[in-house]
Amino acid sequence: MPMIRIEMFEGRTVEQKRACAKAVTEAFLATCGGRLEAVEVIFTDIAQHDWASGGKLFSDPK
Amino acid sequence: MPMIRIEMFEGRTVEQKRACAKAVTEAFLATCGGRLEAVEVIFTDIAQHDWASGGKLFSDPK
Amino acid sequence: MPMIRIEMFEGRTVEQKRACAKAVTEAFLATCGGRLEAVEVIFTDIAQHDWASGGKLFSDPK
Amino acid sequence: MPMIRIEMFEGRTVEQKRACAKAVTEAFLATCGGRLEAVEVIFTDIAQHDWASGGKLFSDPK
Amino acid sequence: MPMIRIEMFEGRTVEQKRACAKAVTEAFLATCGGRLEAVEVIFTDIAQHDWASGGKLFSDPK
Amino acid sequence: MPMIRIEMFEGRTVEQKRACAKAVTEAFLATCGGRLEAVEVIFTDIAQHDWASGGKLFSDPK
Repeated sequence: MPMIRIEMFEGRTVEQKRACAKAVTEAFLATCGGRLEAVEVIFTDIAQHDWASGGKLFSDPK
Repeated sequence: MPMIRIEMFEGRTVEQKRACAKAVTEAFLATCGGRLEAVEVIFTDIAQHDWASGGKLFSDPK
Repeated sequence: MPMIRIEMFEGRTVEQKRACAKAVTEAFLATCGGRLEAVEVIFTDIAQHDWASGGKLFSDPK
Repeated sequence: MPMIRIEMFEGRTVEQKRACAKAVTEAFLATCGGRLEAVEVIFTDIAQHDWASGGKLFSDPK
Repeated sequence: MPMIRIEMFEGRTVEQKRACAKAVTEAFLATCGGRLEAVEVIFTDIAQHDWASGGKLFSDPK
Repeated sequence: MPMIRIEMFEGRTVEQKRACAKAVTEAFLATCGGRLEAVEVIFTDIAQHDWASGGKLFSDPK
């Protein structure tokens, strides 16, 4: 703990996830405290046809 | 916000998800209020061998 | 299954949740099919100071 | 209900998930009570490059 | 990791959660393997008026 | 989207959450890109007796 989950559109590279995990972990520790080893981050890629806003899928034209 | 997540067996089409996102969003707004643009829906497809009920996987014979 | 989770700002009444559970369940069945008894809905109330958009808590002035 | 979710590294077989769903369901019932048919378990496989601890992806060398 | 989440009706005691965390962790390790220290369990209590099945809140008469 | 969820032990102040939401949002944007307004963060406070590691509740003596 803490457990940080990040759901985002698929397409980010492993390099981006690597940098993001490091930056988000540091951002958490700097503001909320805790031990570095205790912070976990899980990424979940979501397809645009699996995410809707305002009742419309992101994969559909606006 | 609000954030609505729908976990279901894999196999639904994008057409079904499109219709579902629209209908569920309208159902939420009609009963709980809020702004259309603020409602998000995320679909997660689950394989039958990743879901169990009563200690048995749905992919196994009953 | 399916499992539908709805996270929203705290403040909705049990009457609203009752109507919402019914309406969302019907919306799901009408578009994705399935059996009525199999649909579950879980509501989670979130305080405005526990939800941020654009890096700002909803409890803060815009 | 109850709803038990298990996120773990990808690689477990369906046989392991089958045994795990049964064992975890029994462990829950033995300690918290409830009806067998009401317990659901959902497995989510996570790639090592989607999980970080201490700001480092598990897919990276320590 | 792994991360095990258990959502259940509110009312279980800390003693039950203590026993459940131990039993579920052991059930996971016996079937899926892994290191004891790496298994985390999070309990979430849900009120009966926040959980619906078949479109009806569990707090309502059947 | 993206949606960032942070589960942590209860006890952080609203000031800490405010700073954390801002810092984590900026960390995400700097590494994964996206629009500021689209990033959402939800905090969930977990009691120490609702979180276990290695089969033991954090509220129990080690």
